[in-house]
Amino acid sequence: MKSLEALGERRIIEIIRSRLSLMPKMPVPFGDDVSACNLGNGKLAILKTDMLVDKTDVPPGMSLWQAARKAVIMNISDFAAKGVKPLALLVSLGLPKNLDDKDIGEIGDGLNAGAQEYDTYIIGGDTGEASDLIISISVFGTARKGKVMLRSGAKPGDVVAVTGCFGKTASGLRVLFNDIKVPKRIRRVLVESVLLPSARLNEGLALVQSGAVTASIDSSDGLSWSLYEIGRASNVGFLITRVPIAKEVEEFARLNKLNPFELALHGGEEYELVLTIKPKLLEKAKEAVEKVGGKLIPIGEVTTGEKILLRTNGKEHAVEPRGYEHFKQRKD
Amino acid sequence: MKSLEALGERRIIEIIRSRLSLMPKMPVPFGDDVSACNLGNGKLAILKTDMLVDKTDVPPGMSLWQAARKAVIMNISDFAAKGVKPLALLVSLGLPKNLDDKDIGEIGDGLNAGAQEYDTYIIGGDTGEASDLIISISVFGTARKGKVMLRSGAKPGDVVAVTGCFGKTASGLRVLFNDIKVPKRIRRVLVESVLLPSARLNEGLALVQSGAVTASIDSSDGLSWSLYEIGRASNVGFLITRVPIAKEVEEFARLNKLNPFELALHGGEEYELVLTIKPKLLEKAKEAVEKVGGKLIPIGEVTTGEKILLRTNGKEHAVEPRGYEHFKQRKD
Repeated sequence: MKSLEALGERRIIEIIRSRLSLMPKMPVPFGDDVSACNLGNGKLAILKTDMLVDKTDVPPGMSLWQAARKAVIMNISDFAAKGVKPLALLVSLGLPKNLDDKDIGEIGDGLNAGAQEYDTYIIGGDTGEASDLIISISVFGTARKGKVMLRSGAKPGDVVAVTGCFGKTASGLRVLFNDIKVPKRIRRVLVESVLLPSARLNEGLALVQSGAVTASIDSSDGLSWSLYEIGRASNVGFLITRVPIAKEVEEFARLNKLNPFELALHGGEEYELVLTIKPKLLEKAKEAVEKVGGKLIPIGEVTTGEKILLRTNGKEHAVEPRGYEHFKQRKD
Repeated sequence: MKSLEALGERRIIEIIRSRLSLMPKMPVPFGDDVSACNLGNGKLAILKTDMLVDKTDVPPGMSLWQAARKAVIMNISDFAAKGVKPLALLVSLGLPKNLDDKDIGEIGDGLNAGAQEYDTYIIGGDTGEASDLIISISVFGTARKGKVMLRSGAKPGDVVAVTGCFGKTASGLRVLFNDIKVPKRIRRVLVESVLLPSARLNEGLALVQSGAVTASIDSSDGLSWSLYEIGRASNVGFLITRVPIAKEVEEFARLNKLNPFELALHGGEEYELVLTIKPKLLEKAKEAVEKVGGKLIPIGEVTTGEKILLRTNGKEHAVEPRGYEHFKQRKD
């Protein structure tokens, strides 16, 4: 008999999966960021569900509006990583009895704000009583077969690239949880990264069209963990030569005597895309992303090893895959 | 400021809905049992999500396996009522920390059992920590436009029909909650209706093909409430001339001095279909249902009034729409 804390989220998912009969010819393997179902004529239905629970996913200082919006964003981010446009959302709400009608309105507004930002709609749902605030979102979209950026296509020699700088949410969460004092101008940037996250949907949709991407994931469980997951699904390793750290994170780390690499590599709830790209198509991919107002930052390359190596100052060392995992104790 | 208990589930849903931007040209109106999204070429994606929360949806004596299976059944029942085949399911699990690996396996087995019974698969999901056990299921299917049995098409003169007898779950819940002693042979029937519910999927799929149905809903919130919902969506009333009560319920009511009509009309979590049918096609509808091993029982007719009237012993009286509603106090 093992407790959930001993098992951890990933082992729990493995146990559930081991009990399930597998749908024949699943177009997207179990364990990727979305699921899929054949619609015929080379078309796929793309489906995703992810649940926000206030006690683990809502930091101090986050409003109900922000929590509801975040529940939408974290689901859309997975669609972004796969290059699939979300067409419709459903919401399943578990509501604690101490909420009132004003709170419910705020949740409704937050859900709608998240959906509207990404040009989609909430078309249905369900509600019931629960001890925690639970916001479970389901997303639906369609895609052509072969036009979904899976975790599993990375090849040695591919370029590793990301859509932004890292470390803001790990820093912002420290500010919110530990009430760390920081200069106003960087506080705002760090805290907003947590309270008002964005999904890289335009980037993801542009990238899938470019045909340059071999594997993709969002960094919601942290950069190191995202690399680990691509590595596991694609059976490859990585040599990371540059960790793009936000300048506010550099400053936050300096002021608080923290390691900025730690903040950037092992954070979480940071919704950048982590991609592997065919070297010959890197420029095309960059142009596609820049055309929609984003950026694509190469950070290393895919290797045959199974490790994630980080080269700094000419020296290489292994990066441990660490990130946020439900049920396990939070480390910070 | 109003508490959730004062608002009740239905008013809470109205508040949320009032905050949402409406998808243009929604093929299924908000508030029906499923939602839909146009796929082009006259095809619809059909989507549904419904959440089981142990503290309100799991009666004493229900195992984790049964709870997980029930979470699947209650979602499939809504697809049954609309005449849509479920193609794939997703599951979002909120797990209390006191569960262990054996419990997780049992939940996985229950989910799979429910899916397999209805010839479908769980293709993905998500898990996180929660104070209650939360099993949120999302269902996906497709349908031709116009081939979804909505709540809104009932016309005066249509026949009202149901797919089975009522009152077993209301009686079974009383047995489980209040530990009422009843003869073994009826106890098993009543309690099993609660612990091992079935969805009328074959009946629903046969009925949509028959083209005879003008409106449909499942009776998960009770027979009287289901009629009220069809009445509201179709702007009609009902004259009910026969309430089919299960023989075990008649006996249970007699032994415990309860009103069998109360048990049959105002129960809940009973997954029969409640339908309105074009009179000329009633025989065709009956045959279609009998061909898949089910039955179709006429219980009255659709009227122009807005009331639900019940005729017993030559006298008519109004039936109050009462059924289970989350957040409101349980009445039994």
